Amino acid sequence: MLYPQLDPAHNQTPLAQGLSASPGAASGIVVFDADRAQTRGKAGEKVILVREETKPEDIHGFFASQGILTSRGGKTSHAAVVARGMGKPCVAGAEGISVDVFERKAEIGDRIINEGDVITIDGSTGNVYAGEISTVEPEFTDELNTLLAWADDQARLSVRANADTPEEAARARRFGATGIGLCRTERMFNATDRLPIVVEMIMAEDKVARQEALDRLLPIQRDDFYELFKVMSPHPVTVRLLDPPIHEFLPSEQQLVNELASLRNVRDAVDSVGKLPDALKMLDPQVHANYSETLENLHESLEQIQGEPLQRLIDYKDSLLRKVRVLYEVNPMLGHRGVRLGITYPEIYEMQIRAILEAAARCVQEGIEVNPEVMVPQVCTAQELKYVKDFVDALHPQVEAEFGVKVQLKFGTMIEVVRACMRASQLANAAEFFSFGTNDLSQATFSFSREDAENKFLPFYNENGILQDNPFEVLDVKGVGRLMEFTVEQGRKSREDLKVGICGEQGGHPYSIGFCHSIGLDYVSCSGPRVPIARLAAAQVALTSPEFNYD
Amino acid sequence: MLYPQLDPAHNQTPLAQGLSASPGAASGIVVFDADRAQTRGKAGEKVILVREETKPEDIHGFFASQGILTSRGGKTSHAAVVARGMGKPCVAGAEGISVDVFERKAEIGDRIINEGDVITIDGSTGNVYAGEISTVEPEFTDELNTLLAWADDQARLSVRANADTPEEAARARRFGATGIGLCRTERMFNATDRLPIVVEMIMAEDKVARQEALDRLLPIQRDDFYELFKVMSPHPVTVRLLDPPIHEFLPSEQQLVNELASLRNVRDAVDSVGKLPDALKMLDPQVHANYSETLENLHESLEQIQGEPLQRLIDYKDSLLRKVRVLYEVNPMLGHRGVRLGITYPEIYEMQIRAILEAAARCVQEGIEVNPEVMVPQVCTAQELKYVKDFVDALHPQVEAEFGVKVQLKFGTMIEVVRACMRASQLANAAEFFSFGTNDLSQATFSFSREDAENKFLPFYNENGILQDNPFEVLDVKGVGRLMEFTVEQGRKSREDLKVGICGEQGGHPYSIGFCHSIGLDYVSCSGPRVPIARLAAAQVALTSPEFNYD
Repeated sequence: MLYPQLDPAHNQTPLAQGLSASPGAASGIVVFDADRAQTRGKAGEKVILVREETKPEDIHGFFASQGILTSRGGKTSHAAVVARGMGKPCVAGAEGISVDVFERKAEIGDRIINEGDVITIDGSTGNVYAGEISTVEPEFTDELNTLLAWADDQARLSVRANADTPEEAARARRFGATGIGLCRTERMFNATDRLPIVVEMIMAEDKVARQEALDRLLPIQRDDFYELFKVMSPHPVTVRLLDPPIHEFLPSEQQLVNELASLRNVRDAVDSVGKLPDALKMLDPQVHANYSETLENLHESLEQIQGEPLQRLIDYKDSLLRKVRVLYEVNPMLGHRGVRLGITYPEIYEMQIRAILEAAARCVQEGIEVNPEVMVPQVCTAQELKYVKDFVDALHPQVEAEFGVKVQLKFGTMIEVVRACMRASQLANAAEFFSFGTNDLSQATFSFSREDAENKFLPFYNENGILQDNPFEVLDVKGVGRLMEFTVEQGRKSREDLKVGICGEQGGHPYSIGFCHSIGLDYVSCSGPRVPIARLAAAQVALTSPEFNYD
Repeated sequence: MLYPQLDPAHNQTPLAQGLSASPGAASGIVVFDADRAQTRGKAGEKVILVREETKPEDIHGFFASQGILTSRGGKTSHAAVVARGMGKPCVAGAEGISVDVFERKAEIGDRIINEGDVITIDGSTGNVYAGEISTVEPEFTDELNTLLAWADDQARLSVRANADTPEEAARARRFGATGIGLCRTERMFNATDRLPIVVEMIMAEDKVARQEALDRLLPIQRDDFYELFKVMSPHPVTVRLLDPPIHEFLPSEQQLVNELASLRNVRDAVDSVGKLPDALKMLDPQVHANYSETLENLHESLEQIQGEPLQRLIDYKDSLLRKVRVLYEVNPMLGHRGVRLGITYPEIYEMQIRAILEAAARCVQEGIEVNPEVMVPQVCTAQELKYVKDFVDALHPQVEAEFGVKVQLKFGTMIEVVRACMRASQLANAAEFFSFGTNDLSQATFSFSREDAENKFLPFYNENGILQDNPFEVLDVKGVGRLMEFTVEQGRKSREDLKVGICGEQGGHPYSIGFCHSIGLDYVSCSGPRVPIARLAAAQVALTSPEFNYD
């Protein structure tokens, strides 16, 4: 009801089908990479980004596109999660489509779709159509607003949104979100103007060089947070410190290998051409004279690429490739990420915490009420949390003194590692709030990699009744839920007023919201467009008090 | 005390140091691949297998070697785990060593070690020495045997061994193991005579072709189990059904890419040479005549490799490469493996269950008392267990009828997925025993990939007191242990006489054994050489009843 839908009168046959990864429908011209999406999007064209799968480095292509279509990946693939977060339609894992990025075309059966061809995707059904199909816009009527206000009066759970940019935050407010439950700072790192600085930080040979790059990121992050706090004022904004493994900010090994091969070919060609003038001199002087103007021109253009600059580029790409190989992990989901990064490279978290504090201080100076919350990802032991808390306790009074104002700041932790559930009572000594990251927690509880399971065995499991639901869509009450209840109980044993929320995908799902209510959570946080549904669900469970058991 | 040690009188300086991955010391000539290890080992030479890291396909190299040295990987890397299982010395992750497999040499600082050079490794300290250092053999004295017998009288926990072959089982018996707690059937799949059939099964295009390959594996597995049961009679033998993701049985993507490039070079060379006779005919007939004999010979040798057979080999390697890419997983640890494989390819588990039943039936026919136990890996829900139990219930009476004897068979599950802990009471309805797989369970509880953590952040965590121990060596009582206690309680709620054991690495560690005793486990299972220590520890905890808490 809250997304654009295909005109119900259309009678087109779909070209292909994938997973309904993010609801809504959109039409546009096909582009096969994020740069092209940005160029054509900025030129005012409506584009659909079509990829085999997406990576964090494609993020600018998401912003520029009406919708995303991938031939690989499940409902919690990068493409699906990011598209849902942005409220953009996405069809993922449309396996009938074969994408050829280099030829800029895709094959669907015996049909070829070229860059620039118009297609329509329906993220609510997973269908992909040739050509444009008109869409019907959603209406946010007065009646609906009244109904949602009644709902808010009944609900005990408050509803926040997952939002990473001021634009997303503003839209979430329009949907009625009363705070941001999850701001993913890596999305800020991925924007085109920051990524080169982030890469510089990763490639830094020592702490000094790393700090230098971080010093340049600080004002940018501070501005990000400032805008976000302002838009959401006076509601709380939970900022999660850097989470993904840092190799995600670098190009893939395959991409670098390909680039290096091309660059080396260019160098070889340049070398051969560079020897041409001498070779030609051996010929009849008259022949040589005939070529001299052409050679002059060739020489000029060669000077721009050959020698030093080209070699430097090759050396740089080579060093990137070596770094990518050093950072390689067998199971990146269970790797060097989250707080493990924050502890081994403390200057990253220190920069982020300072940026949050300074942004908040600036708001206070301007009379804007702010409630920032710092959230630490991937925590498994209280010692990790204390380690990061020490940064906060050192920086907080410093920034207050520099800005001459008092700043409110809450400190808390994601609960997404099973051991954190077991240690909830100890974690609550340092954490003022818990937020369940049920995407990762479900992966760890099931030992299912969300990037693999949805393409391999999970559909079979669902079809054959081995699992009733996809646990990445519907909270698994009997396993993950039971862990969550234990965690809430243990956490509130050490801190009675511990605030607890959920910011995983399942936080926007009505059945899951019912369970969150039943175990005493304070809030749910979901992608912006799911906020109205979550508000209704929160009221419904407050009125009906559904019961859950673990049998 | 139970492993060969370096002569205490030696005064050599180590060349390099790695992790003490499997205790004991050994000297031998360096070889850089498993095939070479096998060839030279069979020729009666003592060899040390030196690799960057090892893979299941190197298993024949382990058997042929005195010890294993790797430059990458931690204490639970493939090399370390397999070496400990075999009781062979292993130094892992000796990062100062740079291995060049193609040049058949290794660099240690500015020193070059070539294939055939003698080195000594000390798996108890992680030291690597040039040349041979004499070792002191362990003594299993009468006094020790008496002490161990006293220990067994006091202990409540029984001690089993992890063993995959009749040889390992026989050695484990000598160490006093009263059963096999974990027989990993994938080790049987990896032996050189079986691997081609396993690859055929994986490459099968349909169920019929897959069944055909499995039919050939059945008698081989049956003989494996028969020998194992006989050696261990009358003690129980727990056979774990196939666990690892099937891509582990195929060569790596990189290896296939390299092989294909070489093969294509050979084809091109062959093609060029094939055109040589015609090209030479253009020359002076006298010159041609001079070459004719040489050409004749060349032709003959070419006929053996060119054309069809070479192209078929290229096509086959190409199809392997495509399969490897289809099977690729982002996080294989959390991927399509264990019971998830057993359910999506039921014919694999059916073959294994039949092999176990037939081997047991043959023992019964011969008057050998056997107690086989079928164990299902990676279970997360009772439905999975019921699915496999149905295979057992169908095959059990069939085999009994075919052999005309009654066969005892216990059915149980690994507990290595966190959700299995949460569902213990439901699982115990179908399972007669639980066995904690604390390697995987610790990974899932911490969200630490054991293949990555030990090389990246875990040493930093241990040095800075964030974690006191390496949870893959010492059972993490406060997190993993607490889950285990919950599991035992819940499991025995539905089945009072549920037998519970542990078969992870930590099952051989005295402190961990104390905890296992305290939560009421029935047995621990560890690698053969750790059995005597485990027997002493089991007695000690029975006498002292150490207490554990989760604060």
